[in-house]
Amino acid sequence: MSTYPLLERIENPADLRNLDRKELKPLADELRTFLIDSVAKTGGHLSSNLGTVELSIALHYAFNTPDDRIVWDVGHQTYCHKILTGRREAMASLRQHHGISGFPRRCESEYDTFGTAHSSTSISAALGMAQAAQIKGEARKTVAVIGDGAMSAGMAFEALNNAGVAECDILVILNDNEMSISPPVGALNKHLSQLLSGRTFNGARAIGKRFLEKLPSPVFEFARRTEEHVKGMMMPGTLFEEFGFTYYGPINGHDLNALVPMLENLRKLKGPHFLHVITRKGQGYKLAEADPTLYHGVAKFDQKAGIPAEPARKASFTQVFSDWVCDMAAKDQRLIAITPAMREGSGLVRFEQEYPDRYFDVGIAEQHALTVAAGMACEGMKPVVAIYSTFLQRAYDQLIHDVALQKLPVLLAIDRGGLVGADGATHNGAFDLSYLACVPNIVIMAPSDEEECRRLLSTGFLHDGPSAVRYPRGAGTGIFPSASLEPLTIGKGLIRRQGRRIALLAFGSLLSTALEAADEIDASVADMRFIKPLDRELIRTLAAEHELLVTLEENSVIGGAGSEVARALEEDGILIPLLRLGLPDHFIDHGERGLLLDEAGLTRARILERIRARLDAIAPIAE
Amino acid sequence: MSTYPLLERIENPADLRNLDRKELKPLADELRTFLIDSVAKTGGHLSSNLGTVELSIALHYAFNTPDDRIVWDVGHQTYCHKILTGRREAMASLRQHHGISGFPRRCESEYDTFGTAHSSTSISAALGMAQAAQIKGEARKTVAVIGDGAMSAGMAFEALNNAGVAECDILVILNDNEMSISPPVGALNKHLSQLLSGRTFNGARAIGKRFLEKLPSPVFEFARRTEEHVKGMMMPGTLFEEFGFTYYGPINGHDLNALVPMLENLRKLKGPHFLHVITRKGQGYKLAEADPTLYHGVAKFDQKAGIPAEPARKASFTQVFSDWVCDMAAKDQRLIAITPAMREGSGLVRFEQEYPDRYFDVGIAEQHALTVAAGMACEGMKPVVAIYSTFLQRAYDQLIHDVALQKLPVLLAIDRGGLVGADGATHNGAFDLSYLACVPNIVIMAPSDEEECRRLLSTGFLHDGPSAVRYPRGAGTGIFPSASLEPLTIGKGLIRRQGRRIALLAFGSLLSTALEAADEIDASVADMRFIKPLDRELIRTLAAEHELLVTLEENSVIGGAGSEVARALEEDGILIPLLRLGLPDHFIDHGERGLLLDEAGLTRARILERIRARLDAIAPIAE
Repeated sequence: MSTYPLLERIENPADLRNLDRKELKPLADELRTFLIDSVAKTGGHLSSNLGTVELSIALHYAFNTPDDRIVWDVGHQTYCHKILTGRREAMASLRQHHGISGFPRRCESEYDTFGTAHSSTSISAALGMAQAAQIKGEARKTVAVIGDGAMSAGMAFEALNNAGVAECDILVILNDNEMSISPPVGALNKHLSQLLSGRTFNGARAIGKRFLEKLPSPVFEFARRTEEHVKGMMMPGTLFEEFGFTYYGPINGHDLNALVPMLENLRKLKGPHFLHVITRKGQGYKLAEADPTLYHGVAKFDQKAGIPAEPARKASFTQVFSDWVCDMAAKDQRLIAITPAMREGSGLVRFEQEYPDRYFDVGIAEQHALTVAAGMACEGMKPVVAIYSTFLQRAYDQLIHDVALQKLPVLLAIDRGGLVGADGATHNGAFDLSYLACVPNIVIMAPSDEEECRRLLSTGFLHDGPSAVRYPRGAGTGIFPSASLEPLTIGKGLIRRQGRRIALLAFGSLLSTALEAADEIDASVADMRFIKPLDRELIRTLAAEHELLVTLEENSVIGGAGSEVARALEEDGILIPLLRLGLPDHFIDHGERGLLLDEAGLTRARILERIRARLDAIAPIAE
Repeated sequence: MSTYPLLERIENPADLRNLDRKELKPLADELRTFLIDSVAKTGGHLSSNLGTVELSIALHYAFNTPDDRIVWDVGHQTYCHKILTGRREAMASLRQHHGISGFPRRCESEYDTFGTAHSSTSISAALGMAQAAQIKGEARKTVAVIGDGAMSAGMAFEALNNAGVAECDILVILNDNEMSISPPVGALNKHLSQLLSGRTFNGARAIGKRFLEKLPSPVFEFARRTEEHVKGMMMPGTLFEEFGFTYYGPINGHDLNALVPMLENLRKLKGPHFLHVITRKGQGYKLAEADPTLYHGVAKFDQKAGIPAEPARKASFTQVFSDWVCDMAAKDQRLIAITPAMREGSGLVRFEQEYPDRYFDVGIAEQHALTVAAGMACEGMKPVVAIYSTFLQRAYDQLIHDVALQKLPVLLAIDRGGLVGADGATHNGAFDLSYLACVPNIVIMAPSDEEECRRLLSTGFLHDGPSAVRYPRGAGTGIFPSASLEPLTIGKGLIRRQGRRIALLAFGSLLSTALEAADEIDASVADMRFIKPLDRELIRTLAAEHELLVTLEENSVIGGAGSEVARALEEDGILIPLLRLGLPDHFIDHGERGLLLDEAGLTRARILERIRARLDAIAPIAE
């Protein structure tokens, strides 16, 4: 007999809705087993998906999907949703090259109503859908499912502020698992804990009663009818009520007997409603329950043995930053480290332990992260903001307006610059060199190896103005950096290989590939280090001694380092063939990094091929 | 006798603090008169500054500035602050070239603790300062003054969420004048109105009492003592209390007898406090009280006669958009117009009147504006987001992640692209072509005159994907656009003047200057229209027929249109001298547009000068 007798009957949510309500619990058990088995084979997000098994079932059971719209915030918790919407077998290809994505994608399924991955977009998107339905006179319902971590981002509040008065039908489900990737922070989280513990309820009982009495009678009826199922329901969750939502909860997000009737009833209501659901990350898999952070995002693993709690320490650029920031903090008391909810990913675990007073996790709040850093810098501190390239996009205006314009000494330690692999298009750091280069007053650096990363971090930190060091995800060249905290000279690159005819100008991570390629064609290689200011003297020298300049960067070819080399040549009146290699002008999907680099034309072989093609084309000129 | 006997005694806030409290009211009267007189002569923001006369006096009187820090959100309400902090005489140079700025600037005065102009940064900056003071063991106080409009932006909530649990001393003053530039929107505003009307107070009386009893005794004492002065004080403002602040107010922000003792007492308190102050925009100047929007930002005017209520309709790009959006809405029911609190500035006043159901003012919430547009586009609507170039920086991630990645048909109508004049560095649209060009899937257009603006708006609207039309502040060439709603061909520019040797490639606003310059040197001129996709065929033709290509754009020379022309030439293997003209790589201050363009080298004369210099340099190559 099959391990998944119920699950295998479900090709789409309509099949799910044909099940008897009693079958939902055994289905949840099957789904959980399938999920663990599947993620153990492919890797991916685990803890969050174990937490949304029942919620996924209940939503598709109670709502008429795909006509009703469900928008999943962040979307790394949608594996069960994917399994229930026709992608059970496709799970074997999860996050792999040309396989299904680890996030919802509109092009993948009609049930994926909105592509997510960056946090806190769901309420805005759902409101847009609900407002469109209202304008078109369509009766469909729209649901946003958002985590408590994602609620800390400003744009979630912008959306609540609009949705609460929009007079259209929207249900916001707060999936409260008391943690994003890092532990929760901020007043909002405190508020949620109070809702849980009932302290606020008691304090607000007087209002609660009055509120209940004022409600339109269907709601009141509904509240009364489902009272036995749903403990704590209909008490006012003051914060969300203030935004114009009717608040329900908190309810147990693993109890299908609570969830299903609640959602079925909520589906019938008009206007903005807010359901507070409590789930547990890792639910139902003991190893993940015990350490949800370890099981947040996993590589393939052995289900029984689990993930080794202390994985072999891999040298990575993140690790270089992690060590550097502690070492520099020991030397300079003005150093402050700020992270927008990425303690683990950014390498600040040890820093928090050693320098708790100078560690600030601001929650998923990139805008605030930059401006609070600016405020600290005004008072003589030296803030270091550790941030992923793709998330820095959230704080672009703050970087320009609050940091760069005021020339404040804030160091951006930009991780995940370039391709990230399995997380795909939404997580690639493909644009930072482009959107940073046009900002005045900022020093922009890209290290080519671990030692240079450490030295450039010191360079930015000691510079009296804004600076950014961007480095890629994962391992570098494998060298172990020195203990030096000495800076390098700003705006100076160096020649790493002297060859002839062709000069490769590498900005950051592709230097080692450039060196390999150069060996084959006896090209020169420069390690440029700085995108801004550029080493124009070095460029002039290279232009004078070669017939072709080739720029290499793991960033869009539009407006990045190559573009700045072109400008330097123009301004110096130098006419020389230039081959600008970088990421192509389209979004790059998930897949193994090597495959993606090959597609982007940035492996050794592809670089050589492209150089040869260009040489053939310019030969008449060069001869 | 002097008109300003008290005001003239105040060279800095220490002088102010030497005044007797009874002298403050007459001082306020003098200050108001001085302010109206001053702004009538220079132009500038008026309504907001009339609203903060008493607040500015009270803050500098009660707090020990500059040691205590005051951060003014947006900062267009700081004229009184400037007058009281040593810049009374400098007000004659307000917003003029090399004169003082219309916003706070750190380089201008030690009392300007943080440069503002974009909304909603003040709480983050103030928190950074307060946290730094705490780390350094300094006892100074930090105050953020923020308007009710600015409170609707997400980053204000990110800051509240952090400040409420930060355990450091910060006072947030909500300057509630019931409007930003456009009328208030959103649930937050409704909440504030309820606080004002006392409805929430009554509802929450039970909590209020309990809350008061739980307070540490100095606060309670303080509350009791000042009770007679301050009506309504100490009732819980639930929303802000939920964020961990102690809420005081609302109090009358024009009553110095209420403001001063309140601030003096608040200064003594530890932790996060929130004071709700009610002011009236335009207070004390009848004409401005009657129409604060008309007097929001003014040119020089006659004090007695006031500003003509119906100023002569000036042709401007904003007006072209205003007409186009109504005309297209009449033709296509799917058109939705969205503005982040810029109804007047973006030209949506008539649209709101004619199509109220399809008009969405989302408040100062650029992030939400983009993503709610994306959500609407998912449901078959065709959203048009009207936004200033500099404020689009706030929604950069949403543009990439929610709109461009999903190829959704959202049209960005980007106003104030290029130099804006008196508002200065914070308001220039200097970077949009650079930060947009690297984003895949988007069509980027820059019209050179009013007719082209209208046609390109239609082009973007009818395109099935993301698009952006960016146009400058103010008047165009003066031509009156046709009634056509027909699109132009995407990616096609055209030759506007056929000359020899030199070809000017103009992107947008500088076309007319290019034509003037070309007449003098018999150069060719192309009106490129599209930054993305570029008209590569046209570029090839121009390169084949000329010796020098000159690109012209009112955008940073880094990564914008010129950069893309360089890339096109590289990829086609064309070697030709290229002169890239655009805004230089530094922030450009306020001043008259003509002066600024001259400094940037973008007037006819400067363009000719730069072309001649380049021609001299390349002559040996070109011959």
